[in-house]
Amino acid sequence: MRASQKDFENAMNQVKLLKKDPGNEVKLKLYALYKQATEGPCNMPKPGMLDFINKAKWDAWNAIGSLPKETARKNYVDLVSSLSPSSESSGRVDKEPGSESVVITSEDGITKIMLNRPAQKNAITIQMYQEILSALEATSKDDNSVITVLTGNGDYYSSGNDLTNFTNLPPGGIEEVAKTGSILLRDFVDCFIDFPKPLIAVVNGPAVGIAVTLLGLFDAVYASDRATFHTPFTQLGQTAEGCSSYTFPKIMGPAKAIEMLIFGKKLTAHEACAQGLVTEVFPDSTFQKEVWARLKAYAKLPPNAMRISKELIRHNEKEKLHAVNAEESTALQGRWLSEECMNAIINFLSRKSKL
Amino acid sequence: MRASQKDFENAMNQVKLLKKDPGNEVKLKLYALYKQATEGPCNMPKPGMLDFINKAKWDAWNAIGSLPKETARKNYVDLVSSLSPSSESSGRVDKEPGSESVVITSEDGITKIMLNRPAQKNAITIQMYQEILSALEATSKDDNSVITVLTGNGDYYSSGNDLTNFTNLPPGGIEEVAKTGSILLRDFVDCFIDFPKPLIAVVNGPAVGIAVTLLGLFDAVYASDRATFHTPFTQLGQTAEGCSSYTFPKIMGPAKAIEMLIFGKKLTAHEACAQGLVTEVFPDSTFQKEVWARLKAYAKLPPNAMRISKELIRHNEKEKLHAVNAEESTALQGRWLSEECMNAIINFLSRKSKL
Amino acid sequence: MRASQKDFENAMNQVKLLKKDPGNEVKLKLYALYKQATEGPCNMPKPGMLDFINKAKWDAWNAIGSLPKETARKNYVDLVSSLSPSSESSGRVDKEPGSESVVITSEDGITKIMLNRPAQKNAITIQMYQEILSALEATSKDDNSVITVLTGNGDYYSSGNDLTNFTNLPPGGIEEVAKTGSILLRDFVDCFIDFPKPLIAVVNGPAVGIAVTLLGLFDAVYASDRATFHTPFTQLGQTAEGCSSYTFPKIMGPAKAIEMLIFGKKLTAHEACAQGLVTEVFPDSTFQKEVWARLKAYAKLPPNAMRISKELIRHNEKEKLHAVNAEESTALQGRWLSEECMNAIINFLSRKSKL
Repeated sequence: MRASQKDFENAMNQVKLLKKDPGNEVKLKLYALYKQATEGPCNMPKPGMLDFINKAKWDAWNAIGSLPKETARKNYVDLVSSLSPSSESSGRVDKEPGSESVVITSEDGITKIMLNRPAQKNAITIQMYQEILSALEATSKDDNSVITVLTGNGDYYSSGNDLTNFTNLPPGGIEEVAKTGSILLRDFVDCFIDFPKPLIAVVNGPAVGIAVTLLGLFDAVYASDRATFHTPFTQLGQTAEGCSSYTFPKIMGPAKAIEMLIFGKKLTAHEACAQGLVTEVFPDSTFQKEVWARLKAYAKLPPNAMRISKELIRHNEKEKLHAVNAEESTALQGRWLSEECMNAIINFLSRKSKL
Repeated sequence: MRASQKDFENAMNQVKLLKKDPGNEVKLKLYALYKQATEGPCNMPKPGMLDFINKAKWDAWNAIGSLPKETARKNYVDLVSSLSPSSESSGRVDKEPGSESVVITSEDGITKIMLNRPAQKNAITIQMYQEILSALEATSKDDNSVITVLTGNGDYYSSGNDLTNFTNLPPGGIEEVAKTGSILLRDFVDCFIDFPKPLIAVVNGPAVGIAVTLLGLFDAVYASDRATFHTPFTQLGQTAEGCSSYTFPKIMGPAKAIEMLIFGKKLTAHEACAQGLVTEVFPDSTFQKEVWARLKAYAKLPPNAMRISKELIRHNEKEKLHAVNAEESTALQGRWLSEECMNAIINFLSRKSKL
Repeated sequence: MRASQKDFENAMNQVKLLKKDPGNEVKLKLYALYKQATEGPCNMPKPGMLDFINKAKWDAWNAIGSLPKETARKNYVDLVSSLSPSSESSGRVDKEPGSESVVITSEDGITKIMLNRPAQKNAITIQMYQEILSALEATSKDDNSVITVLTGNGDYYSSGNDLTNFTNLPPGGIEEVAKTGSILLRDFVDCFIDFPKPLIAVVNGPAVGIAVTLLGLFDAVYASDRATFHTPFTQLGQTAEGCSSYTFPKIMGPAKAIEMLIFGKKLTAHEACAQGLVTEVFPDSTFQKEVWARLKAYAKLPPNAMRISKELIRHNEKEKLHAVNAEESTALQGRWLSEECMNAIINFLSRKSKL
């Protein structure tokens, strides 16, 4: 069966209507099939090492080899079709409940902020950073909200910063991405430092990068025994954020913190608990039931006593944490512009696109 | 068998001669039986929620229902009799050795401060705070005292602050209790912060509240495997003291400290040891023997080297700890005057008096 | 078989040519045999308690009792002969590769500093402090060196400060030793505080004293399960150094830190790992293989990301650590001049020489 030129044009329009970002890998694939369908085998000169977006695109196109144009067109149409459930292709553009990439609900004094990009392992896009930040600001002022929870939908807690945040370059290029990214990161983390009520992480599965480093700012961290904790910053030429350069050595001592933050060791849930990063580990089979029962009980405790206790425990650290956050954000801005970091990200994306 | 009016009056006099405080529950029971015996069933209007002492008294009297006056008189006499061992009713009012609520002894370079209200789970009264404080001040200047130990007599280490400290209201009412309580607490904890020689906790059984929070200021904490560690501040509408809002997060990280200090999680001895609050756990059967053998060996080490080492380790923290202590004491004074805290204490005492 | 006067004189010359310090015990033994061989049984008045070098010599000589002069001469010659391998007696005085007490090598981006006095359990002499310090300064500026490792040759990691540093008194006596020792210690520890790249301890066996206390300044600590961690400062009338009075309570909490630093508790490798002092423990049989494979992988990570991460993690502590180091060095200078410390060292050396 073939795909007509009309099918191909419909598919191109459907892509623009997708409600969810299909992720970096799929987008590179779509790019490659589009080029192959319209221009045939890769005919561009190979981009330089530092032009890493075009290098990734070139790699994807070039990987298709001599696939016929018609087959590429058919594959493109099929791929788009697999991304578009029937409801999506109906032309309605209003968001349906549950389709947002961050879902916020409130019940029994508990505000739940759920990362909701399960197909992308709950990787955090720039828009999601902004939505989480707004949700925290709103709930901090809501007298009906006693306890606030961050969790993930699906198998992952979160795979951390979405690397497409670096590859969808605006007109200002990588320098603008680095600058605005550094400012957004700093604002985002500041919001966790200042949050005035109990803030709980319900870590339902693997956590990576900033999803791990932020944990030092939570008041309790409950983890499924399926969860893992991984901060591969050095491997990507980057440095630690989320105040972890300060909180992790304080929590577990430098010898264990540096094994994570500099050498990228991945911890199991039980290891993270033994080192004080996690409050308690639960069997995955009863995780949701046990944790939410406990949280509902906590949400009934006297709220002022909790708020004042948190203030006593945390306020001495706030000034220091804001300074650390500023340093870490500035260091990352420098890293993002470095050749060492660019090469590491290119290598990482090439390895992924070859799989 | 009945109790005559003469028996009843004798019993009333015996109560005034009791050497040991019989505790809050017994005193409420005595009050109720006395009222029932003299006035019959509870005839007072129910006090308002904020008048929590009279509310507790009213609850106790009202709970007796329609018990006949004569039975109440008989029960009163029997209850007093059970509190007064024959030696107590002999009329001698000098304290016998071992009958003090804090017993201080010295041997082999070790000063031992033992809480001695086993029937009240070594709950700490205002007088006991003052006696411990005086003992620490005296031993800190005594050249023959190398090591100082705090421990409990009986099954408990200590159930913490005696709640009768709040219910025996002076003429100034709850505001005066809150003010003088806050000052006493601050002086008491300051004395632990400044203690210049090795200070050891021998935790022979369950520890609650301030008996737990102070442990971060001890130089070693040895625990029986029967010991537990519980700080139910939020449940009582209160906040943490003993510098624990600073020392606990430093020792075990915020995720574990907040589970104890805000959410009131009770730890076993082994959990407390894994989290660094306890130095070592011993089987209860050999606890006293092993710990005192070790302490006797330590008391023979060069005392100046120990004193200077402790100074090196602790002096950088002193200024910070005094500031934290002041903050915590002020926060508690505010809590004690809050409706949230009063209601929580009333609920707690009502639950106890119904048992 | 007898030793002639000529054999005896040859032996005395050989002693001067020894490349390695034979250690304190052997030197006292040589002194005693020499005196016995030339003057007969000990004829000196017993020195005062504070003259601790002469007291140790007197003890050693006096311990020989009435051994005949000729037997002493023979024993002296035999003892020297056992210390001098044939290559040593050949008259060559150039150092052979591997015969230095600190061996420094570089390969695959890893600089390895190996303590190499296995017969003396890698006790650190004044000269070795200076050599390690120079090696750290050189490698910190060497762009080819990514990771720096400290380890020991033989069964021990290091038994710590060589006590002969106190007994080989210069003309200025103990006061000069205390003053120059305090300055050297401070410079030595400062160098670890400021080291800008990943610094790894490969703890191949037991570690004592400063070899343990310095571990809080390393970025990773890998230990064989044969390793132990012992800081018997108080027993020798001394106080903690290497910034451990600050780093140990931070890493493991005061209750565990003081058990080590004041009461001299020896930890197993697994205990030290549970308390955060050690990053990871390996079976001794595979220790070297596993650790070096891991280090080679780490040495290939982006070096700037590692250096900047370490800077983020450590720079906030530097000022504090330098102040702590200065305090600890000054406290030790005072200790070394105290009667309490002198008596403790005399007792320790006497016990050893009697074995």
